[in-house]
Amino acid sequence: MRVGVLTGGGDCPGLNAVIRSVVRKGAQEYAWKFVGIVDGWAGLVKDVTMALDVPAVRGILPLGGTILGSSRTNPLRLEDGIERIKNTLSAHKIDALVVIGGEDTLSVATALSDAGVNLVGVPKTIDNDVGGTDYTFGFNTAVTIATEAIDRLHTTAESHKRTLVVEVMGRHSGWIALHAGVAGGANAILIPEVEFDLDQVCAWVEKRFEINYAPIVVVAEGAVPKAGQMMVKDESRDEFGHVRLSGIGDWLARQIEHRTEKEARTTVLGHVQRGGTPSAYDRWLATRFGLHAVDAVKDGDFGMMMALRGTDITRIPLADATKATKRVPQELYTEFDVFFGT
Amino acid sequence: MRVGVLTGGGDCPGLNAVIRSVVRKGAQEYAWKFVGIVDGWAGLVKDVTMALDVPAVRGILPLGGTILGSSRTNPLRLEDGIERIKNTLSAHKIDALVVIGGEDTLSVATALSDAGVNLVGVPKTIDNDVGGTDYTFGFNTAVTIATEAIDRLHTTAESHKRTLVVEVMGRHSGWIALHAGVAGGANAILIPEVEFDLDQVCAWVEKRFEINYAPIVVVAEGAVPKAGQMMVKDESRDEFGHVRLSGIGDWLARQIEHRTEKEARTTVLGHVQRGGTPSAYDRWLATRFGLHAVDAVKDGDFGMMMALRGTDITRIPLADATKATKRVPQELYTEFDVFFGT
Amino acid sequence: MRVGVLTGGGDCPGLNAVIRSVVRKGAQEYAWKFVGIVDGWAGLVKDVTMALDVPAVRGILPLGGTILGSSRTNPLRLEDGIERIKNTLSAHKIDALVVIGGEDTLSVATALSDAGVNLVGVPKTIDNDVGGTDYTFGFNTAVTIATEAIDRLHTTAESHKRTLVVEVMGRHSGWIALHAGVAGGANAILIPEVEFDLDQVCAWVEKRFEINYAPIVVVAEGAVPKAGQMMVKDESRDEFGHVRLSGIGDWLARQIEHRTEKEARTTVLGHVQRGGTPSAYDRWLATRFGLHAVDAVKDGDFGMMMALRGTDITRIPLADATKATKRVPQELYTEFDVFFGT
Amino acid sequence: MRVGVLTGGGDCPGLNAVIRSVVRKGAQEYAWKFVGIVDGWAGLVKDVTMALDVPAVRGILPLGGTILGSSRTNPLRLEDGIERIKNTLSAHKIDALVVIGGEDTLSVATALSDAGVNLVGVPKTIDNDVGGTDYTFGFNTAVTIATEAIDRLHTTAESHKRTLVVEVMGRHSGWIALHAGVAGGANAILIPEVEFDLDQVCAWVEKRFEINYAPIVVVAEGAVPKAGQMMVKDESRDEFGHVRLSGIGDWLARQIEHRTEKEARTTVLGHVQRGGTPSAYDRWLATRFGLHAVDAVKDGDFGMMMALRGTDITRIPLADATKATKRVPQELYTEFDVFFGT
Repeated sequence: MRVGVLTGGGDCPGLNAVIRSVVRKGAQEYAWKFVGIVDGWAGLVKDVTMALDVPAVRGILPLGGTILGSSRTNPLRLEDGIERIKNTLSAHKIDALVVIGGEDTLSVATALSDAGVNLVGVPKTIDNDVGGTDYTFGFNTAVTIATEAIDRLHTTAESHKRTLVVEVMGRHSGWIALHAGVAGGANAILIPEVEFDLDQVCAWVEKRFEINYAPIVVVAEGAVPKAGQMMVKDESRDEFGHVRLSGIGDWLARQIEHRTEKEARTTVLGHVQRGGTPSAYDRWLATRFGLHAVDAVKDGDFGMMMALRGTDITRIPLADATKATKRVPQELYTEFDVFFGT
Repeated sequence: MRVGVLTGGGDCPGLNAVIRSVVRKGAQEYAWKFVGIVDGWAGLVKDVTMALDVPAVRGILPLGGTILGSSRTNPLRLEDGIERIKNTLSAHKIDALVVIGGEDTLSVATALSDAGVNLVGVPKTIDNDVGGTDYTFGFNTAVTIATEAIDRLHTTAESHKRTLVVEVMGRHSGWIALHAGVAGGANAILIPEVEFDLDQVCAWVEKRFEINYAPIVVVAEGAVPKAGQMMVKDESRDEFGHVRLSGIGDWLARQIEHRTEKEARTTVLGHVQRGGTPSAYDRWLATRFGLHAVDAVKDGDFGMMMALRGTDITRIPLADATKATKRVPQELYTEFDVFFGT
Repeated sequence: MRVGVLTGGGDCPGLNAVIRSVVRKGAQEYAWKFVGIVDGWAGLVKDVTMALDVPAVRGILPLGGTILGSSRTNPLRLEDGIERIKNTLSAHKIDALVVIGGEDTLSVATALSDAGVNLVGVPKTIDNDVGGTDYTFGFNTAVTIATEAIDRLHTTAESHKRTLVVEVMGRHSGWIALHAGVAGGANAILIPEVEFDLDQVCAWVEKRFEINYAPIVVVAEGAVPKAGQMMVKDESRDEFGHVRLSGIGDWLARQIEHRTEKEARTTVLGHVQRGGTPSAYDRWLATRFGLHAVDAVKDGDFGMMMALRGTDITRIPLADATKATKRVPQELYTEFDVFFGT
Repeated sequence: MRVGVLTGGGDCPGLNAVIRSVVRKGAQEYAWKFVGIVDGWAGLVKDVTMALDVPAVRGILPLGGTILGSSRTNPLRLEDGIERIKNTLSAHKIDALVVIGGEDTLSVATALSDAGVNLVGVPKTIDNDVGGTDYTFGFNTAVTIATEAIDRLHTTAESHKRTLVVEVMGRHSGWIALHAGVAGGANAILIPEVEFDLDQVCAWVEKRFEINYAPIVVVAEGAVPKAGQMMVKDESRDEFGHVRLSGIGDWLARQIEHRTEKEARTTVLGHVQRGGTPSAYDRWLATRFGLHAVDAVKDGDFGMMMALRGTDITRIPLADATKATKRVPQELYTEFDVFFGT
């Protein structure tokens, strides 16, 4: 049995932990051979591979990033993408693939599986927006980092009359913002799933100032204000004609500052949230996903994705998982209403 | 409505997060009054209470310990324990109790509930051994701390030929040892649920030395060797007639050192594992447990314990949760066989 | 003996550690009484004080912020500022002051000392820009936080072709940028003391891409490009006529992105750098500053500032310390040339 | 110019940072070639070397341990040790050595230098006991780790009536114990330099219980009680005739428990203190030591050791640095008297 392993999409702490457990279990328990696919789908399209055996995965458990490299190459956009992938698989005599990736990568996997490629998927994304699984690995690490940052801001909040805005990752879903905001004791949490009202945000901010403690506002990068509240000028392009880099965090701080007439400061964590060593939680989850992915390959149970359900790792059809982005449900968001603005 | 809140048993990061969310939701949403019961059941037995309102819970989310104090007092061992508790509740016009504790505390809560006291339970324990809930808060923090320690030991393991033994908490269950051992990449994990064989452990250790990398052995404080392997002398008492403080970790290191003829060193984390700020995960879980406990009290759904099931907080009868310690299932333990000794 | 203690200026981890050691040594060793001055010089101007004794300083060693509060009030700008301060001191029978603050606060202390007030100074600033002392407390904590952020970015740098810009604190001096940049292995470090050349920065960035590893650029918030490189448009005001919040980090990222035609991302740490618990180093230094400040008061050696010289705490005239901002010397900056762009 | 680099003695965070800066500056600025000596002096005695160039040192700045390996081999104990070293140096055409190590390693370097070998030394030790330099790298990291552990114990100390004993590294000097104890707010700090009196320690512990807060006792592994206080039985050997592994921490906890009749618990950090990533402080110091070592080699200033004096890196004769262990001076220890037992 020869098994290819690939990682696709953006950085996510825990990728190496999956690779390691897949290879260790496959090689040590079943004597499988492995082929490392370099840079995600690009490696299969262009036939770029690397050696992948037990010595190659030693010591990688705590490392961020991925030893296999990654890319955002989407072979479905190439006319002969699937054919080229099949050729590479055939050239290397690869019997099955373990595909580790987020929504985009797993959507490709779903299509390839439909086209007859033997593969199993492992969901990863710091955004936690893959459906069908309670959590994805990487998410806990990102939330932990963002929460630590919010913790530190409380020191300033205790002694200065400034609104502190923290912009966290989450273009399409607010999982990181919600979890870190709740864990960090934020006074407002703005997520892409629910348009925010600048007047409401400023009311929360003002209410917080009343108890003599500066407000902390956590905003997901994909959060948007109600129609009409973001003025044209903010969407303008910079001196090079590019969309301005500075994001919702800065914009929001400016608006709050203007309306409340109290200083506002911004922290933009950026890629800090997706780097460094995975948390213990993510290593546990990633390791188990890897072990169970080997079981699925062993069982010939292809087209399935590993999923966390409670404390169990289960398998669900890839097609089910990739049909929609998992977003924060309204009722979960409102569960924390009591903390907003108070 | 007047609600009493108490915390019982040993330290556990997240206790204050529960207290805070109970009080904030109860006071802000339903205008309830709260009574802080001091030092767990002892406070009810001896009528020691403290003020508990929204200002009192400000800023406590990230703090370890419990602002209410705790104790291991078991009122069921007093002849008139339940009566005295009822008197205190009546004196303070307390309509319902929120009881936050581990196995022992919740067993008392079960008995009190049977005796007609209106209460809901919230499970806490760093050991994760309360049944009926996927996880308890405090556990993730303990695992995180233990994993960080193991991470640091890998540096030495890379360069010195020494067996490194890490003793972690867990008298009756091996959840911390298993999670931290897996997350930290340990080469042997010994838990109370499965008697270990010293010969097997030494075989794992020797195998690890072969690849020129020192073995890391994680042992729960309650792990025990096969019958006959712990010699009488080790169980002897110290110069004061007390059972010797030094635990399974030291004993194991001495045994491995003697048998493998290579140095062994021990790290005993002790109370370090239950102190300090709760992890983001535990704050999220503790906060939600508190919010849902308020809902349960509001609903008059007494005798129930909050439980995590997947991503949902549910309610289960206290009696179900406390009937047995939740231990690591054999099949979960063996899931990680492939990492032992290699 | 009655001693007043005040803290002035921005947040700085370690303020509470100084307060604690001053009070504990003064009260326990010499039976002094203390008066807590609230909100820095404002407390003396407006006569706002608080109780300050040994119980009041219990447990504050690891806490960020200051239990006394702080402000940026400068009494020298008030016509009768010094007189009002003297009145307050006299009303409270305060024999001597311990003044903990940065450049601004200590400059006021110098003037007050010249006006006959008995006081000693303790230097604090996360920026490390107070003269006469090797280091100020708070600085090590800020450097540690910024370094951890840079560490995390390396994960992304290994796998993505993006320039990563990190903006750190330092309006007038580049100590944090230089220390964190060196400790974090940055490829370019831009400080206020040395105008940077955008062409040079882009050359460094390009050179780094050649070895297939994304460049990390650390920029102090006060760093400025060569004359002519910052275009008018960047200095423009936002939709409210305010100077734009978004700082040098965002600007620099946009410029690099435009010139190198590769994506650039920004992390802006902001107040995260000055919050949270002080590092072990800062607690040690702050504690010793406090103990020695008590010695200085005991000796009647007023008008002096505590200073770290090697491993010794010494006293230097306040006037010497406050006559100029301590900036990064050119020769220290160039010591690290070899790491730039490579 | 060909330069050999070696690291000797125990693990110490920052070794890789020195290697990296030596190689980068030597190779990039002066086009030197480097030879990596494997496993300290053993590599020179047995002629085991490895390639060492700029690519080899990429990414090692944050890594604990040493890419060159280390050992405690002392060539002076071999009859022909120095001769064999000279042969290896000659065989590899090595013009000069950079020797990174603690007391033992640098003592050998001193002897070799006397015997005509061109070398410069860089001091490392987590124990901070090398003379002539304010600090050694590795020390700050160890203190940071120990302080974090003490911080966590305060949570328990607040709520339980137990003496908490923390054993930290330091066989011959108490630098780690003193710094971590002061930074962590310990109530007793016991160091090898000053024999402790068990009666005094218990008096401190009892005094602490009076204010309703459990005592934390930090003890260096090399601390010893007054003559007569350690009973024969404690020095006994274990069931294998080996000296008992369990150290002063366990012994002390048992004694305190017996005398105060209150529970005592022990944390033994062990190798956790010397592993993991170096702190920002240690990376800065190690990097500068490396850069300055290259300068010294360039200058032909052999037989010298790099030393930190204030904020400067200076050179001192190796012989001066290695003539005596740097121990905690009595007056520094007593500076903190006010915190003991209170």
